[in-house]
Amino acid sequence: MKAKLEKITPRDEDFSQWYTDVCLAAKLISYSHTKGSVIICPYGYAIWENIQKILDSEFKKLGHENVQMPMFIPESLLNIEKEHVEGFAPEVAWVTHGGNEKLEERLCVRPTSEVLFCDYYKDLIHSYRDLPKLYNQWCTIVRWEKTTRPFLRSREILWQEGHTMHATKEEAEKETLQMLKVYENFQRNVLALPVIVGLKTEKEKFAGAEKTYTVEAMMYDGVALQNGTSHYFGDHFAKAFDITFLDKDNQLKTPYQTSWGVTTRMIGATIMTHGDDHGLVLPPKIAPIKTIFIPIGNDENVMKTINDIAKNLEDNTYQIDTSDKTPGFKFAEAEVKGIPVRVEVGLKDLGNNEVTIVRRDTLEKIKVPVSLASKKIEELLETIQKDMYQKAYERRNTMLYEAKTYDEFKNIAQNKPGFIKINWCGETECEEKIKEDTGLKSRCIIEEEDADGKCIVCQKEGKKKIYFGKQY
Amino acid sequence: MKAKLEKITPRDEDFSQWYTDVCLAAKLISYSHTKGSVIICPYGYAIWENIQKILDSEFKKLGHENVQMPMFIPESLLNIEKEHVEGFAPEVAWVTHGGNEKLEERLCVRPTSEVLFCDYYKDLIHSYRDLPKLYNQWCTIVRWEKTTRPFLRSREILWQEGHTMHATKEEAEKETLQMLKVYENFQRNVLALPVIVGLKTEKEKFAGAEKTYTVEAMMYDGVALQNGTSHYFGDHFAKAFDITFLDKDNQLKTPYQTSWGVTTRMIGATIMTHGDDHGLVLPPKIAPIKTIFIPIGNDENVMKTINDIAKNLEDNTYQIDTSDKTPGFKFAEAEVKGIPVRVEVGLKDLGNNEVTIVRRDTLEKIKVPVSLASKKIEELLETIQKDMYQKAYERRNTMLYEAKTYDEFKNIAQNKPGFIKINWCGETECEEKIKEDTGLKSRCIIEEEDADGKCIVCQKEGKKKIYFGKQY
Repeated sequence: MKAKLEKITPRDEDFSQWYTDVCLAAKLISYSHTKGSVIICPYGYAIWENIQKILDSEFKKLGHENVQMPMFIPESLLNIEKEHVEGFAPEVAWVTHGGNEKLEERLCVRPTSEVLFCDYYKDLIHSYRDLPKLYNQWCTIVRWEKTTRPFLRSREILWQEGHTMHATKEEAEKETLQMLKVYENFQRNVLALPVIVGLKTEKEKFAGAEKTYTVEAMMYDGVALQNGTSHYFGDHFAKAFDITFLDKDNQLKTPYQTSWGVTTRMIGATIMTHGDDHGLVLPPKIAPIKTIFIPIGNDENVMKTINDIAKNLEDNTYQIDTSDKTPGFKFAEAEVKGIPVRVEVGLKDLGNNEVTIVRRDTLEKIKVPVSLASKKIEELLETIQKDMYQKAYERRNTMLYEAKTYDEFKNIAQNKPGFIKINWCGETECEEKIKEDTGLKSRCIIEEEDADGKCIVCQKEGKKKIYFGKQY
Repeated sequence: MKAKLEKITPRDEDFSQWYTDVCLAAKLISYSHTKGSVIICPYGYAIWENIQKILDSEFKKLGHENVQMPMFIPESLLNIEKEHVEGFAPEVAWVTHGGNEKLEERLCVRPTSEVLFCDYYKDLIHSYRDLPKLYNQWCTIVRWEKTTRPFLRSREILWQEGHTMHATKEEAEKETLQMLKVYENFQRNVLALPVIVGLKTEKEKFAGAEKTYTVEAMMYDGVALQNGTSHYFGDHFAKAFDITFLDKDNQLKTPYQTSWGVTTRMIGATIMTHGDDHGLVLPPKIAPIKTIFIPIGNDENVMKTINDIAKNLEDNTYQIDTSDKTPGFKFAEAEVKGIPVRVEVGLKDLGNNEVTIVRRDTLEKIKVPVSLASKKIEELLETIQKDMYQKAYERRNTMLYEAKTYDEFKNIAQNKPGFIKINWCGETECEEKIKEDTGLKSRCIIEEEDADGKCIVCQKEGKKKIYFGKQY
């Protein structure tokens, strides 16, 4: 077997190239001839299926139902909410012809579906009895990005978008925060990402939203990834679409709306947070294959041992690599694919009644008696999940800064990757000045922490603590 | 509660209107402002999710893996296989602008993904070790249909498309038939559809395929629905795309290809086969809610009884309707939605220690002792599944004809809905004459039955038995 693994650029030499190399070497994606779109290969798609399964179950537990809306939005429908169309029109793909005929009205491929849901809700909602409406859809959206990068920024995006309508402002605000929490918990507990959550500024919020909450992840290189958002719309869209309901008190009222979404970008964040020079490192809870068994030598006793250990595993997402590649190649391949636990079973170890277990996160090798192997694997999967979070959390903390003056801010911004916390007056002017001077954009307003000094830019009264950082 | 159920046109009065009424009244779909597309509502989408779950598991058991290909096909890529582009180009949607810029090359929204998969396979396949490739994707495709009908014919279609590549002709042919069998079994055993499978004629086969196998369902009104196809491509596409592999014998060879797909049309077939004047009738195996409990009167003992029966059910897809609607309204709603088993629990019955169970398929009411209710519900769900198939099978059989002469054929075609079997010479000319004379199109060649007489049209030697019928 002459198969050769693709070379991965060292992570600290060129992080961007390392990322692309890992995506290709781990066979997560492949390039296509459709510019700006990638193919999501079986291993990459299996991660997305795991994400879908877990999140979909969380959504449903909270009463959400899945629907499927049209993929196309007539231009006149997109134009109904002013801020929204201004935000999205410059980056949509337009269908102008169907078959051989020019369309009377051009259609955009949905970049997001607020207007489609509003159009639907207008038909559905008439009485307080029709509320709340808690809908979600899993679909592909299109945004005509100029520069693209696998999972992070693509012309086609696989995502879910929740869209809900509520009788009261309070209920809608509660929903917005509840779904933010679902995203935060999922990213912390399943993807092992030590995310920071907060509120987007006026400048950075979603086109048409009243408030946008964000889940901000910090990559290995200190650069931010906006990794999920939850929007509170108030009644802007509902008013624009003339959606009303008769409330219990017999008054005609306008309902309040939210939307929230996460994309395959979460796969990118997982790679960029945990990966290393050997390739992908997957948290056990999201790994399509949690344990891989590699037989060393073609021996009956080796195979019997593997089958015995495997059948005692509680979790059956394991693989036994019986291909005709060399053990060394199989080890490397298991590493590139980020499989959390590798079990090497050979006659030499079996002579001592042992097998060798290798942790992907630390590459530590552990000799374990055959009889204890299944239990040890289960334990390790839990340990790895926890340790991966802890390691990422500690690394992230070394890249969180607080700047007390603008000079200090500019100095950190220039020399150290990461997020910088400052006191801020709340004005877009100061936010824009920081962007112009340093290239850093606001990440999020920290809601649970008040400013404890003047705005570092304008020296006026500080109102909020806010994070700034570079972003992908 | 003044809620009123939407009126359903009697099935035998206007079948087409009945179908639309059921789709709307059961809240399976809703119309949108995107012409030619519908909204799939929560209840309709839940049926699709059940279909996906079962089929996806079957595909994976047989070694298939899911991927996600681009949604857009550059025009030059679509143009590579001649028959294919001629078949599809007249019915695709074209994206000509991205943002504010005109694209250098226009892109079609995929009407099917053969060319995308071939483009991908060209990169992936080099050695016999790379074969077979067994890929599938769940996605939306677009075909610019002039006339549309919910689930049956829409500009946007939710479907799955399997695409596989094999080292030998035999293996590819085996895969084509295997997937046809998966579709047939699923439709028979899960959707309770007594389908007929066979081979499409040269005229009716898929654009670019060597052979197209089809699953033909017959609706209540005797009209056919092509309800799934499995194609054998030979090496046409592989040659057009210059895909080759080095075989074990060191010879450079061209691989053999298949594709196969089913769509939400299967939901339409289920409605049109089993539904009645009260609405939808769902086979238990695909029903999102298998059992609905309706309390009569607001009483503690009623609710306790319901909870006791429900918690003993093996299958937990039940619902307890505690809304403030009247029991009569709830009964009607459960009927419209086609919920297989309805359990009415009220004080009067409880006085005799009984509950009333109603079968949706027959509307039969059965009084059952409380202690036996859970067991009876489980039994009924199995019985209903079987009985629904049997009833549809018997009805279908009354609409299967065999015509020995062309006059007999024309007579049946004009007077009786259904499928007509004939001896056929195999020539497209005779097939087209039938179409011209009667409007009937060929459904499928019956592979296991040879002709036993002359072609009823041209009187030349009969080669095949073939079904003709009207189609949706």
